[in-house]
Amino acid sequence: MCLLGIDLGGTTIKAGLVDIKGRLLVKGQVPTGAAEGAGAVLERIATLAGDLARGQGLAMQDIKGAGIGIPGSVEVEKGLVHLAPNLFWRDYPLRAELAARLNLPVAVDNDAHVAALGEMWQGAGQGFNSLLMVTIGTGIGSGLIIDGHIRRGVFGYGAEMGHVKMVREGPQCHCGGRGCLETLASATAMVRRFREYLAAGQSSRLQDGPDLGAREILTAAAAGDELATRVVDFAASYLGMALANAVLLVGPEAIIIGGGPAQAGEVILAPIRKYLAESLGAWQIKPLPVLAARLGNEAGIIGAARLALELLEHRESF
Amino acid sequence: MCLLGIDLGGTTIKAGLVDIKGRLLVKGQVPTGAAEGAGAVLERIATLAGDLARGQGLAMQDIKGAGIGIPGSVEVEKGLVHLAPNLFWRDYPLRAELAARLNLPVAVDNDAHVAALGEMWQGAGQGFNSLLMVTIGTGIGSGLIIDGHIRRGVFGYGAEMGHVKMVREGPQCHCGGRGCLETLASATAMVRRFREYLAAGQSSRLQDGPDLGAREILTAAAAGDELATRVVDFAASYLGMALANAVLLVGPEAIIIGGGPAQAGEVILAPIRKYLAESLGAWQIKPLPVLAARLGNEAGIIGAARLALELLEHRESF
Repeated sequence: MCLLGIDLGGTTIKAGLVDIKGRLLVKGQVPTGAAEGAGAVLERIATLAGDLARGQGLAMQDIKGAGIGIPGSVEVEKGLVHLAPNLFWRDYPLRAELAARLNLPVAVDNDAHVAALGEMWQGAGQGFNSLLMVTIGTGIGSGLIIDGHIRRGVFGYGAEMGHVKMVREGPQCHCGGRGCLETLASATAMVRRFREYLAAGQSSRLQDGPDLGAREILTAAAAGDELATRVVDFAASYLGMALANAVLLVGPEAIIIGGGPAQAGEVILAPIRKYLAESLGAWQIKPLPVLAARLGNEAGIIGAARLALELLEHRESF
Repeated sequence: MCLLGIDLGGTTIKAGLVDIKGRLLVKGQVPTGAAEGAGAVLERIATLAGDLARGQGLAMQDIKGAGIGIPGSVEVEKGLVHLAPNLFWRDYPLRAELAARLNLPVAVDNDAHVAALGEMWQGAGQGFNSLLMVTIGTGIGSGLIIDGHIRRGVFGYGAEMGHVKMVREGPQCHCGGRGCLETLASATAMVRRFREYLAAGQSSRLQDGPDLGAREILTAAAAGDELATRVVDFAASYLGMALANAVLLVGPEAIIIGGGPAQAGEVILAPIRKYLAESLGAWQIKPLPVLAARLGNEAGIIGAARLALELLEHRESF
């Protein structure tokens, strides 16, 4: 018996077969081709799943359920994708459609939630009963796990750490708000700030260019570049403050930092830890682990398989 | 069968007998006399409890358990009061001592947690499975309830909304941090700000004086005083922003505002709702109730009785 985990991105579909202990048996990927429409995307998912099963000498009947994480907002109970701009989907009944196509029970959730589940099951979050995972990328995604379960909250979309307001009259965010964390600390925000500093005449060994990304800034900071270090420090200071506020409210046992920048390691983790400790001050009465995500791209697959497993367990308990 | 609920304050001990449906049968109060030491305080609690029982024609054996809320930090599992400055207690084993004195099982928790439980059981929070209660007073206390239970978090002290950082280089807080919500929005902060405005030459119909408190400022604001209105608006703006951030993280079904200022009603609730909605922006996809606490002084007694009930239920399930 195994589970199908699907990480559906705007560019790539990643999928894998995972056993009930959370071991990834095989994985594969194909382009999403979102522009061809939802039917074509589901067809490619089904083909990829079939290929993976055959490669393992399995029939589709050996797969007991599927989970899928998508980049957008999901009504989990209904399995409805409310809005997924990268896929051009709005109010798309993904669970029903995919369940019919795969002939399997399907669970759907937001990709940041799925990644948090994956890290809890098999990654940096193993052994913790509650955790907050923050994923730094174009924006800032997050997943809050309390008592082993994703906290979805009254609005159903779960934790949206990227949009907590950090500065009252801060930068305009695409969500319509101002001073949202992701306007200050996402990979995009780091690049924008670095360019602003350069435009203001400040110097760096790192050159601007169309491919300049947070990765290059973090590498330069790790090599001692002063301007890059200031940019990273600025982002980390707001991440640390936002995490401290989250800790003062819900007190997760661990914090996990995911996304590309987290893979740069201590150059970003160390200042996040420093500002978190500074913001918590006397309220931190014991150490609080701040860990880099460990599963990388596989978190989405493994977490989606976990979603499927929880769906099956939930069904059995009725 | 009934429960004893005790609200132990620095000045007054309030206690009541509550039936298992949460109805307050009788209540009474005596001075705390904290300066005489913990033994004397416990003696007064026991005498008050005996008097209440006798007044109802009950024997102490009819009381099945006691709960007590205290103004300080508590290690709930151990029933240990870590620090309660108003009582001059540090590392005081309240549960063990009070259980021995009353000959009853005793549950201990922080008073903000107990008030949140009381409001959930019998007050403004009835019917909600999750809620965030914020109590505005000298400081800002808070209790977060998730899935019907107080969330105590990794550090055990639960939600500390009063100390989330709202302004990086904000006013110094007694906790050692800067820009904590309670430096911007507590009753104390409102009075301080009002006096600063007066000292800067701004005019108000409200006069300064040794007894000036948030109550007078709120009354003046309700009567249209411009300076008082600005002071209330400033506090509400940070309360609204902090609450929005909490909603984006854990999404409680309702928010309850307690403490003296909340009793002033719409003059403070309306701007809190306005700034909460403004901060949430597009993230608020349906109405979110922001309610005034309803139990007033009785929340501490009724919530403490609820603590006792949960303790008994927990014991029975083993």
